[in-house]
Amino acid sequence: MTSDLSSYMNECKKLLDEELPAYIDRLEMPESLKDAMLYSIHAGGKRIRPILMLATVEAFGHSIKEAIPVACAVEMIHTYSLIHDDLPAMDNDDLRRGKPTNHIVFGEATAILAGDALLTQSFELIADSNLTSEQKVDLIKLLSHAAGPSGMVGGQMADLDGEKQELTLEQLEYIHHHKTGKLLVFSIMAGAIIGHATSHQREHLRAFGEHIGLSFQISDDILDVEGEEGKIGKLPGSDETNEKSTYPKLLTLDGAKEKLNHHFKEGLAHLTAANVQKDTLQSIAKFIVERDH
Amino acid sequence: MTSDLSSYMNECKKLLDEELPAYIDRLEMPESLKDAMLYSIHAGGKRIRPILMLATVEAFGHSIKEAIPVACAVEMIHTYSLIHDDLPAMDNDDLRRGKPTNHIVFGEATAILAGDALLTQSFELIADSNLTSEQKVDLIKLLSHAAGPSGMVGGQMADLDGEKQELTLEQLEYIHHHKTGKLLVFSIMAGAIIGHATSHQREHLRAFGEHIGLSFQISDDILDVEGEEGKIGKLPGSDETNEKSTYPKLLTLDGAKEKLNHHFKEGLAHLTAANVQKDTLQSIAKFIVERDH
Repeated sequence: MTSDLSSYMNECKKLLDEELPAYIDRLEMPESLKDAMLYSIHAGGKRIRPILMLATVEAFGHSIKEAIPVACAVEMIHTYSLIHDDLPAMDNDDLRRGKPTNHIVFGEATAILAGDALLTQSFELIADSNLTSEQKVDLIKLLSHAAGPSGMVGGQMADLDGEKQELTLEQLEYIHHHKTGKLLVFSIMAGAIIGHATSHQREHLRAFGEHIGLSFQISDDILDVEGEEGKIGKLPGSDETNEKSTYPKLLTLDGAKEKLNHHFKEGLAHLTAANVQKDTLQSIAKFIVERDH
Repeated sequence: MTSDLSSYMNECKKLLDEELPAYIDRLEMPESLKDAMLYSIHAGGKRIRPILMLATVEAFGHSIKEAIPVACAVEMIHTYSLIHDDLPAMDNDDLRRGKPTNHIVFGEATAILAGDALLTQSFELIADSNLTSEQKVDLIKLLSHAAGPSGMVGGQMADLDGEKQELTLEQLEYIHHHKTGKLLVFSIMAGAIIGHATSHQREHLRAFGEHIGLSFQISDDILDVEGEEGKIGKLPGSDETNEKSTYPKLLTLDGAKEKLNHHFKEGLAHLTAANVQKDTLQSIAKFIVERDH
C-alpha cells in the first residue's frame, strides 16, 4: 500500500471509528443492548465497505460528509452479519479479530438482538440523513436488496447449505457474489447515488464493484494457501483442513491467480469507462487484491 | 365481535394471506430460505397490525390497495420477531399457535436467517411501493424506529433483562410499550401517512394507538387469569406459574380492569378527536379489548 493510500484509509477509518459509536450512543435503549452493539462496532476491522463508499463520493467531486450516515449504515449491516454468522448455530466462532465474539461476551440472546438492532437501525440512519427523499429511497431499495434474501442473507444460506459438500465453480461464485459481493457493490453504488452519477456511470461502477468483489474473494482463498499465519490471522491451509471449497481447489493455484487477474483488469477497465476521478478507487482496488492479510 | 367487523377482518386477512406469500415467492433466493420464510408467514395469526393499518387508511377515505405493501411489511417484521423470540437462546418455544416453531422445523441457523431476511425485505417492500418518495421515507423512518433498539428490539431486551425479577409498574409498561406497543402504533401511523393525515390528526391517532396498545396488553394479562384454556391456547394462570410480572399481580385484578377501562376510554376519545371515519377502527379497538382469546 502506498503511503498516500494508507493515510487516506486511516483518515477515513478514524472518522468512521468516531461517528459510528457516537451515533449508537445517542440512541435511547436498554444499556445491556447498547453495550453489546457498541462492543462489536468498536471491534471493527478495515472498514473497507464504508471507505469504498466515501472514495466513490469523492470520485464525483462531492464531500464525504454527505455520505457519512450511509457509510455508517453499511458498516452496521456488515457488523450485524458478523455477529449472527459467529453464533453457535451458524459458524460457532469464539474469536473474531483476536477478541471474543459477541455471544461469548454477552450471551446468545443479546447477540441475536444486537444484530437485529444494528440491521434495523441502519435504515433509520439513511432515512434520517440530509439527502433528498429520492436518494434515500434509492439507497434503501438497493441496501435492503443487497443485504436481504436475494443478497447477503441468501449467500449465507447457500454457504450453510453447501457446507461439507463439493461445490461447483458456479455454486462457489453464487455464494461469494451474494454473501460478500452484493454489499461491496452497494457501497460503490451508494457513492454513485450520492455523487449524482449518470446511469452510464452507475452501470460501469456496478461492474467495477462486481469484478473487484470477486477479486477480493479469490485473493482471500489464495492468501489462505500462501499467506503467513501472523498476517492472515489463521493458519494457512485452514480452508483445506475445513474441507472448504475454494478457487485454488477448483482451478489450481495458477488458475485462481489467472482468474484474479482477469477480474481485476476487467474491474479497472470499467472504472476507467465510468469517467470519474479514479485514482483513490483504483488504489483501493489494488490494495484489496494485493494485500498480504 | 359484530358480524360486520368479523367479515371486515376476515376479508382483510384473506387479502393479506394471499399477498404476503405471493410477494415472498416472487423473490430469487435459495429454496431452503424461502421455505422457512413462507412457513412462518403461512402460520400467521390474526394479522391485527396490518388490519389496523388498512382500517386507518379507509378512515381517511383512501383505498386499502395503496397500503398493501406497507401492511405486508409490518406483518413481515412481526413474523421475524416471533421467529427470533422463539429461538432456544430466547424464549425457547417449540410450539406457536399449535404448530412447531421455525427452528424446530428448519434448524436454528435457518430460523435466524429467515428472521433476518423478513426484517430486511420489509424495507425493500416499502421502498418499492407506489407511494411518493416523501411518504416512503416517513414510513421507513417510523418503522425502523418502532422495530429497532429504541422500539421492539429494545422491548425484547428489557423483557429478557427483567425475567424472573419483580418488575415495577414503570418497568412493565416500558416493556409492553416497546415490545408490542410501538409496532401497533406504527401500523396506525402508517395508515395516517398513506391517508395524508394532518399533523393534528397524526397526534391524536398516535395517542389512540398508544392507549389501545396498552389496553391490548392489560387484557392479555387479565385473560391469563380469567380465560378458558381452549380459547387462549395456554393454561390460565400460566403467567403466575412462570413468575411473570403482570398487571393483575401489580395492581390486583380489579385494579387491572380499571386501568384497562381508563386506557380504552382515553384511546377512543383521541380517535374521536382525530376526526376521521372512525367506525371500523373503533370496532377493532373494542374487539382487541373485549376478545376472549
